[in-house]
Amino acid sequence: MALEIAKVEAILRGFAILLLVSTACLVGLDSQTKFVILYEKEVTYKDLRALLVLVYVDAVAAAYNLLQLISRCFSSAWSKGNLKGSNRYLSWACCLLDQLAAYITFAVQSAALEHSVLVITGAEVFQWMKWCNRFTRFCFQIGGALTCGYTASVLMAMISFISAFNLFRLYSPKYFLRLKGT
Amino acid sequence: MALEIAKVEAILRGFAILLLVSTACLVGLDSQTKFVILYEKEVTYKDLRALLVLVYVDAVAAAYNLLQLISRCFSSAWSKGNLKGSNRYLSWACCLLDQLAAYITFAVQSAALEHSVLVITGAEVFQWMKWCNRFTRFCFQIGGALTCGYTASVLMAMISFISAFNLFRLYSPKYFLRLKGT
Repeated sequence: MALEIAKVEAILRGFAILLLVSTACLVGLDSQTKFVILYEKEVTYKDLRALLVLVYVDAVAAAYNLLQLISRCFSSAWSKGNLKGSNRYLSWACCLLDQLAAYITFAVQSAALEHSVLVITGAEVFQWMKWCNRFTRFCFQIGGALTCGYTASVLMAMISFISAFNLFRLYSPKYFLRLKGT
Repeated sequence: MALEIAKVEAILRGFAILLLVSTACLVGLDSQTKFVILYEKEVTYKDLRALLVLVYVDAVAAAYNLLQLISRCFSSAWSKGNLKGSNRYLSWACCLLDQLAAYITFAVQSAALEHSVLVITGAEVFQWMKWCNRFTRFCFQIGGALTCGYTASVLMAMISFISAFNLFRLYSPKYFLRLKGT
């Protein structure tokens, strides 16, 4: 069963990588040029700070998941519940990194969504114009990217859950932070 | 030891409630009126959509943590590792809710931060003016609130980690989703 849960985790990681990479590509390659009043204007993801951060964070998260996937393939000690010596610190580090990655991707996704919604709706109180009625294709592509990104965040939350489950169930239910069978 | 970890969790929840309530209050009670060019303008948290969402989400998260704190005081079955019958579903529900609450507060905090940064810096490409040079006091109060909010998010992430640890260590390390001692 430990093998099956490892397989599920690997599949989830694979999908998460695909979705993260496609989010980064969809956002990074998105640009549109339009003639606005007197001059030609090009909009790219670099104009929205949140999208710039999104591209970097998603790329790093995808690389992290790929590294994890590769390291799991080589060392199968993990799934066998072998937590002796330095292996234990590695497991804890991986579990914490998984959690951190999930939280950060989710938060960055939400910041990008907030910025995108502002571009769609504008903010009348601040006299901020909306821009999506002019750059429609650009906005639709960002919308698709954010959908991918949120799906990837949910997958990463599930991965961090599984990762915590795999680590914590090796511990004794009676004594704090003592491994079972010791 | 199980008692001590429960105590740590209760203390963390207490601090999280305090911080969430103070975030909601700081944001909700923040307003500033200034004379801008020709007319008087009042800015409140309702003008920034992300802050409105922040107030509601933080209030709900504080109420949820308070409920958890109260329910833990009455039922101590939890910390004794008693996971029989319906208790098990309740533990799982609590663990998942803790995770969900942590993710959502963190994400909403980040969306609010993104919107606030936009108000501070403006966005030249979109011809969005900055407003914080006019409403300085308002902006400083929001900054304080966001600091409180992020601290609360980190506390809630720690709570969800402890909650997962308490639940998962009751499970067998060999068999998937089987309790120990069964």
